[in-house]
Amino acid sequence: MPTRIGKYTIEMGSKPVILGFASVVGKKEGEGPLGEYYDQCHNDTTLGESSWEKAESRLQNEAVVLALGKANLKNTDIDCILAGDLLNQCISSTFGLRSLNIPFLGQFGACSTMAQTLAIASLFAESGAARHAVAVTSSHFCSAERQFRFPLEYGGQRTPTAQWTATAAGAIVMGSPQQKQEGQIVVNSVSFGRITDFGIKDAANMGAAMAPAAAQTLLDYFSDTGSSPKDYDLILTGDLGRIGSDLMEELLMKDKIDISAVHNDCGLMIYDREKQDVHAGGSGCGCSGAVLCSYIMQQMMAGKLHKVLFLGTGALMSPTSSQQGESIPGVAHLVYLMA
Amino acid sequence: MPTRIGKYTIEMGSKPVILGFASVVGKKEGEGPLGEYYDQCHNDTTLGESSWEKAESRLQNEAVVLALGKANLKNTDIDCILAGDLLNQCISSTFGLRSLNIPFLGQFGACSTMAQTLAIASLFAESGAARHAVAVTSSHFCSAERQFRFPLEYGGQRTPTAQWTATAAGAIVMGSPQQKQEGQIVVNSVSFGRITDFGIKDAANMGAAMAPAAAQTLLDYFSDTGSSPKDYDLILTGDLGRIGSDLMEELLMKDKIDISAVHNDCGLMIYDREKQDVHAGGSGCGCSGAVLCSYIMQQMMAGKLHKVLFLGTGALMSPTSSQQGESIPGVAHLVYLMA
Repeated sequence: MPTRIGKYTIEMGSKPVILGFASVVGKKEGEGPLGEYYDQCHNDTTLGESSWEKAESRLQNEAVVLALGKANLKNTDIDCILAGDLLNQCISSTFGLRSLNIPFLGQFGACSTMAQTLAIASLFAESGAARHAVAVTSSHFCSAERQFRFPLEYGGQRTPTAQWTATAAGAIVMGSPQQKQEGQIVVNSVSFGRITDFGIKDAANMGAAMAPAAAQTLLDYFSDTGSSPKDYDLILTGDLGRIGSDLMEELLMKDKIDISAVHNDCGLMIYDREKQDVHAGGSGCGCSGAVLCSYIMQQMMAGKLHKVLFLGTGALMSPTSSQQGESIPGVAHLVYLMA
Repeated sequence: MPTRIGKYTIEMGSKPVILGFASVVGKKEGEGPLGEYYDQCHNDTTLGESSWEKAESRLQNEAVVLALGKANLKNTDIDCILAGDLLNQCISSTFGLRSLNIPFLGQFGACSTMAQTLAIASLFAESGAARHAVAVTSSHFCSAERQFRFPLEYGGQRTPTAQWTATAAGAIVMGSPQQKQEGQIVVNSVSFGRITDFGIKDAANMGAAMAPAAAQTLLDYFSDTGSSPKDYDLILTGDLGRIGSDLMEELLMKDKIDISAVHNDCGLMIYDREKQDVHAGGSGCGCSGAVLCSYIMQQMMAGKLHKVLFLGTGALMSPTSSQQGESIPGVAHLVYLMA
């Protein structure tokens, strides 16, 4: 059963299990350093659809269908699906998953959505609220740019702090602890983050806006569990990029916590920053979703990584809030994965 | 512990308890038939803020603070808050709750958000994932109109099927089953709904778009539990309005289920349709939130209602999805409340 440890952390007594996971990405992501690890790479980032939003919906649908297949389950076996994305009213999720006929719980955690959906799905599987629950998220460079920043046709120049929204989706099928088989990944514990706001207002510097939330949730988790960075093989943030990753490490050093030896960031892993012109790195719900649901979990299944803290980070803003002079608050949720 | 009953319903073995609830509304709602039951009515619907969006954030914050007070709890006693609203990227929730420093899980269920947040908070409290969890939602007529329909200054004429987005918020503090005291309301079970789409495309007829989802979730629940309308004092939908309520009853009659004797709708209760010029009734996340967290729960605490099925209904669309030719899918989540 879920048991609270300290103030912010929930430990899974029996440890729900990841029965399947899948990632689907676009062309730029397929050409990146992790290209060979994704389940599906689309060279046409419209995916044959008539709009970027519909293409994103399709990414999410394909990721779920692939993950279900790998878990040997059908849509009718799933008790609920937790899904979210960056678009207004989470339409990628709604329209992408509509045909699956699975009880649907829309989530909004911005780029922390993969961690948020995975954490809730884990709690449902652990407690018996769901026998099988799916966690899924997506983002699409073109749908995000035109909604949050500029029309693509405008061709605006990007600042050095900007991150590149990944065209990608990741999906995970969680099962109850009793279903665990040899070699599968389990969720050991989760920590939900508090909204943190250091007053950053630059929507082209999301890494800086999210870094304080990431640092806070990690500090909370270490404090709750009495553990430290050396107890983990990997602390994986998603997605702080270069600026945010450096800031987070700097913030943690103020508390004398050095994660540099085990820290990596999905936004730094998904693209080759030297060759792919993405400035500070990748971002978008689908960035951490696809990196986690490909290379990272494959490394865990292969016995190369055992203890992974996955820390999803989100910037909770809208163009309207920014236009009204608001800063950009961040949030970060943590999921401790074990293999 | 949560136990699955049938295909879609989760029964709470020990029954988590509602420790506090509160509602905060605007002027029009305060002048409506339930005016005397709200905790707070604002005559100035800006709430002294510089934008409608900030006013909505404030509604949500006030509802949470009042509910915490009635539960004799502080923000630091709360393990997580589940919050959502209609605005892009759920900014009413983020900015309204930022200062409370409570672990935050953004939810998107459109007007089903009160049921969705309450259902998840109940599961968390039941399973031990949270000792105390808060569910909250809000809407504001002015922020919703300009985002989803027309600028207020345009003064567009409303069609007869249109519903009036309530300026309102509702908040509930859930506690673990062990905390129950005499006379308090408990959550007995919940059912999460599937996305349902009958192809309605008129964004001024949300009731029709949501009615099929409401009918489906209720049918699922009756089928799972073997119960029927006569087993309940009230089946409370929120918010179908006049058109949607009639349609839902008609859809259920096809399965020979007659709920008319026990059915009411928050969208029909919140305004006086004869005098308040709201056409088909009220809507918006805050409509069902405020009606549930005032008159309904007060009636339950007073022993006048014992068994209430609360069925939150949401239309999962955005202006973008409608502009791209999409229909308006609905979703409905059910919470069975007992006093």
